[in-house]
Amino acid sequence: MNTTIFAPATLVGSSGITVIRISGDETFCMLAKIFSKSAERFEPVDPEKLSSHTAYHGYVFHDESIVDEAVVTVFRSPNSYTGEDVAEISTHGGSFIYRKISNLLCSSGCIHAEPGEFTKRAYFNGKMDLAQAEAVADLVKAKTDQANDLALRQLTGKFSGRIKSLREELINYCSLLELELDFSEEGIDLVSKEDLLAKIDKLIEKFKDLTRTYESGKIILNGVNLAIIGKPNVGKSSIFNYFLRESRAIVSEIPGTTRDYLQEPLIMDGIQYNLIDTAGIRITEDVIEKEGVRRSKLKIEESDLVLEVIDLTNPDPNADNDVKEVSREKVIKVYNKVDIAPGGKERSDGISISAITGVGMDKLHKAINEKAKFLVMGSESSDIIIANERHRDCLLKSCEYLTNARNQILTGGGNELISFEIRAAMDSISEIIGKTANVDILNNIFTKFCIGK
Amino acid sequence: MNTTIFAPATLVGSSGITVIRISGDETFCMLAKIFSKSAERFEPVDPEKLSSHTAYHGYVFHDESIVDEAVVTVFRSPNSYTGEDVAEISTHGGSFIYRKISNLLCSSGCIHAEPGEFTKRAYFNGKMDLAQAEAVADLVKAKTDQANDLALRQLTGKFSGRIKSLREELINYCSLLELELDFSEEGIDLVSKEDLLAKIDKLIEKFKDLTRTYESGKIILNGVNLAIIGKPNVGKSSIFNYFLRESRAIVSEIPGTTRDYLQEPLIMDGIQYNLIDTAGIRITEDVIEKEGVRRSKLKIEESDLVLEVIDLTNPDPNADNDVKEVSREKVIKVYNKVDIAPGGKERSDGISISAITGVGMDKLHKAINEKAKFLVMGSESSDIIIANERHRDCLLKSCEYLTNARNQILTGGGNELISFEIRAAMDSISEIIGKTANVDILNNIFTKFCIGK
Repeated sequence: MNTTIFAPATLVGSSGITVIRISGDETFCMLAKIFSKSAERFEPVDPEKLSSHTAYHGYVFHDESIVDEAVVTVFRSPNSYTGEDVAEISTHGGSFIYRKISNLLCSSGCIHAEPGEFTKRAYFNGKMDLAQAEAVADLVKAKTDQANDLALRQLTGKFSGRIKSLREELINYCSLLELELDFSEEGIDLVSKEDLLAKIDKLIEKFKDLTRTYESGKIILNGVNLAIIGKPNVGKSSIFNYFLRESRAIVSEIPGTTRDYLQEPLIMDGIQYNLIDTAGIRITEDVIEKEGVRRSKLKIEESDLVLEVIDLTNPDPNADNDVKEVSREKVIKVYNKVDIAPGGKERSDGISISAITGVGMDKLHKAINEKAKFLVMGSESSDIIIANERHRDCLLKSCEYLTNARNQILTGGGNELISFEIRAAMDSISEIIGKTANVDILNNIFTKFCIGK
Repeated sequence: MNTTIFAPATLVGSSGITVIRISGDETFCMLAKIFSKSAERFEPVDPEKLSSHTAYHGYVFHDESIVDEAVVTVFRSPNSYTGEDVAEISTHGGSFIYRKISNLLCSSGCIHAEPGEFTKRAYFNGKMDLAQAEAVADLVKAKTDQANDLALRQLTGKFSGRIKSLREELINYCSLLELELDFSEEGIDLVSKEDLLAKIDKLIEKFKDLTRTYESGKIILNGVNLAIIGKPNVGKSSIFNYFLRESRAIVSEIPGTTRDYLQEPLIMDGIQYNLIDTAGIRITEDVIEKEGVRRSKLKIEESDLVLEVIDLTNPDPNADNDVKEVSREKVIKVYNKVDIAPGGKERSDGISISAITGVGMDKLHKAINEKAKFLVMGSESSDIIIANERHRDCLLKSCEYLTNARNQILTGGGNELISFEIRAAMDSISEIIGKTANVDILNNIFTKFCIGK
């Protein structure tokens, strides 16, 4: 028998209501111990008489006295989120009432749910596959339309559908190869090796196309990492603050003011950014600043876009050295301090701005957005997008097995060997939807959920 | 026609679900514009076919694309919280989805609810009286068992019941007096003036008893104001930090370290305290410290209990001056620094402690709790407790009118005059349950609610 678990499905605090979700075989029996429809005295509800998808008004009781007025909504197995018997108690908001009911449930044998445990049970009970379960967490996290769409496509099963059809294709090839083995003595050829090779090549191409959408998918889900870099005192922190519309970073005229890199979320034109202010890059003896410079360089490597800031009043001829390892299409060159530069001279190889007066910031904003759109657009040719590292890794592994299968065919390997590789490829993509996922993978996924989901 | 309003009934953030509550005549029509049971394409639900107290699984749509998977629970008027048609949409958690659905509802004509607007509508639609509505806010705020019980007694109508029966009594007297007026020419005496006098005296006594419960009620609901006072550098902040189990207040050996008073909630043995650390009282030239001392003195006046802290290593003979205006039963004398006092001498007129080593803190804790219990106990003789200033004021006003009525009887005033005063007394207590409350009173009550309640 399953344990019966509970957790707040909402945040607990000063709000209209708190919803406490209970799931498991004993849900309705436990409910009967604390819930009465009468305010006058405790008359336990009859667990048998609770209808699915029905809301009951009543009172939570403890020791013959009322703890709170509540509405309980009942979902009978299998028609619930987890697939088990589920009750949702809507109590008044406030942490005291939640703690009180939580204690009541504990003492009647109900167990605090772990993060993601409701969704994990939904997965084990076949209410959703693993990719759909992962989408639940992505959906709660989503901050833009694109991220929301991506998570929803995954949650509603469109993504899983595509994975399943690719999987079917591989199963078919295996079946044919294995069937041919059974008839091998009769010498019947069920599948032409040239045909199979062409099909596998096509599949490898498909898989590779999918893995290529990961770059976009990752950015859609987690945001564009946009690093502001440059020599000390070129005005990086001022630009950072300008975009955030607050004085988040301390700004001074002393070179080396910023040491720790700062990172803040930012949404511009529906695209999510992680804006990163870095320490100015220079050779320094200051131990703390030195570490800051080291970290700046790491951040440059991790970023999707880089604003290379140059001081127009004092341009450093070696500025480009710091970004020489960054691909040029990732870099936007920014000349700052145009307001105080002698003659206010514009430069054709970058965007001249002043983070103080705001001159040129519109142009910079536009340039960033164009490049970011391009990063995100990579996904538009495909109707499914990989946004999850785990999914990409499964596809890459699958590709490797298919390449092995291809080599077996080319070198005249037997059907057993070809079929073995195709089966391995199939297992790898099955892992995406969880058909072959192991405990470690599952734990890794569900511990990242919030409580009550 | 009523406008249709909506608000999140839960806190919006990273959680399992967010519940959005909609209430008003157009609730189900608005729901039909955005909610479909099919994930494939938007097929609006039929508002007529939604059954009360039923949960529907489906999808929120916008422009033919899914915004989120959701469960909608339907409550048909009058069987809902507000008494109007109500729908509760449970969406996935996360602020993006909430904002999206909020925009959808706005564009279909739904209006953001003001704080307390759902409960205000419940009141106007006769689902609860005013005292019950006020209890909703108290319940969400409650931090102890006692506060919770008090709010629940009020919410479930026990409190209102008592007020109503007192009101009935007054109505009866008026009726008799006015009936007698009709028969005045026949000279029929329906009510003996001595009898009425005795009854009114009894009522005045009852009302006064009730108003006396306010001191306890207020403390149960809002906590015991416990101020730590004393000369500079006697260790007030150390005691403050000891009780909070964190170094909330900055502690130093420099007299005058604390300037702003600090206030933190604390629950000990089921009683709620507002622990207040004050600036040391001394004559000072420092402008900031001077203001701090002035505020300390105000805080002493407002407090229910006072810890008068004296430095055992350097006792100030004039220490008592600072509390001379405070009634003695409110004061607990505390001798601090017993760990470093020469000979560690105990004092019989107070509790010797060390906030550093913790010596004597148990004893202090106990002494505080005893005094606090006494403050809260005042209420135990009465089965209803006044915890709300407005209720107390209504009762006091009512008492005044009854005293006027009494005087009219004693000075041989006519039935019209006696009845007029009794009616005024009746109106005053009717205000408690809202029968005669005006717009200002209502606004004052409901604006203190949280959004979505």
